[in-house]
Amino acid sequence: MLTREELGAAKERAAAVLGEAGIVLTPAEIDAIEVADFGLSRLDEIGLEIVVYVNTERVCAKELVLFPRQTCPEHRHPSVGESPGKEETFRCRRGVVYLYTEGEPAPNPACRPPEPDAGAFTVWHEIELRPGQQHTVPPNTLHWFQAGDEGAIVSEFSTTSTDERDVFTDSRIGRATVVRDA
Amino acid sequence: MLTREELGAAKERAAAVLGEAGIVLTPAEIDAIEVADFGLSRLDEIGLEIVVYVNTERVCAKELVLFPRQTCPEHRHPSVGESPGKEETFRCRRGVVYLYTEGEPAPNPACRPPEPDAGAFTVWHEIELRPGQQHTVPPNTLHWFQAGDEGAIVSEFSTTSTDERDVFTDSRIGRATVVRDA
Repeated sequence: MLTREELGAAKERAAAVLGEAGIVLTPAEIDAIEVADFGLSRLDEIGLEIVVYVNTERVCAKELVLFPRQTCPEHRHPSVGESPGKEETFRCRRGVVYLYTEGEPAPNPACRPPEPDAGAFTVWHEIELRPGQQHTVPPNTLHWFQAGDEGAIVSEFSTTSTDERDVFTDSRIGRATVVRDA
Repeated sequence: MLTREELGAAKERAAAVLGEAGIVLTPAEIDAIEVADFGLSRLDEIGLEIVVYVNTERVCAKELVLFPRQTCPEHRHPSVGESPGKEETFRCRRGVVYLYTEGEPAPNPACRPPEPDAGAFTVWHEIELRPGQQHTVPPNTLHWFQAGDEGAIVSEFSTTSTDERDVFTDSRIGRATVVRDA
């Protein structure tokens, strides 16, 4: 849950980050920036700011802003009907992002998740992405990511997004952000 | 057909345009920039410089560079097997691009195609895209585009690219660029 003030401040901050990187948005796109707190009300630690450029039945493209050390929690994109689930390519544009997926765990990971003992971060194969570097996550593969100390901008190129179908490891998570007035 | 020198110069020029816009590429990506002259050997008029970020069976993302008044010739993406054909979203990042598609023709179009009398430009519904503006072209829809006087950078988000299946209105066009040594 976010207050309207928190929501507005996060949108403004994300728009400023994108503007500094030379990424031009229309006023309507700035207004529509999605601020995801994953229902945990700890946006600075667990959250994501999202510009959806396009999301059709076949293709989706987004710009993701992560504030310093902000974490997108562990989840996967299962098959939906006859579709094999969302395939995502993450391309780092600014800053550093650490992407964790299924595979050989990193012996000394660069990130520490929020609430490390809660069992909500189970995959530890580490992929460090700096500007110009990218990685494709196959459908139905567990992954989570965290920005470095300076934050990050990440372009996401994918098949259609059906966020409400995402499966989060942390069962407390709800994908829709609830906004309250005060 | 391009000489190796022309190819190298166009790559360097495109990389510089992207660099000035703050778009970071790896050295391997710069080396792999595709320079398309569509077989017409008139790159400055009819051509396109392309960075392919990703092209899987489901999703494709590219950065397109158009030099001033450079034109991507008219074509469409027909269905391939059971797929309904490529769906493309063009998002302008820098400069101005004029996109022409099927629909009500513009009474005073902003562009004049190369060889206007050759019959290779038949759709004249004009969509002007400036930074932050975008348009989605449905499958199998004729379209062509030209940059304004300052050139343009355009992000393309699409379903899979199978360039060799594209159908060009100008029957002289071959999609693969042939490079000769001198």
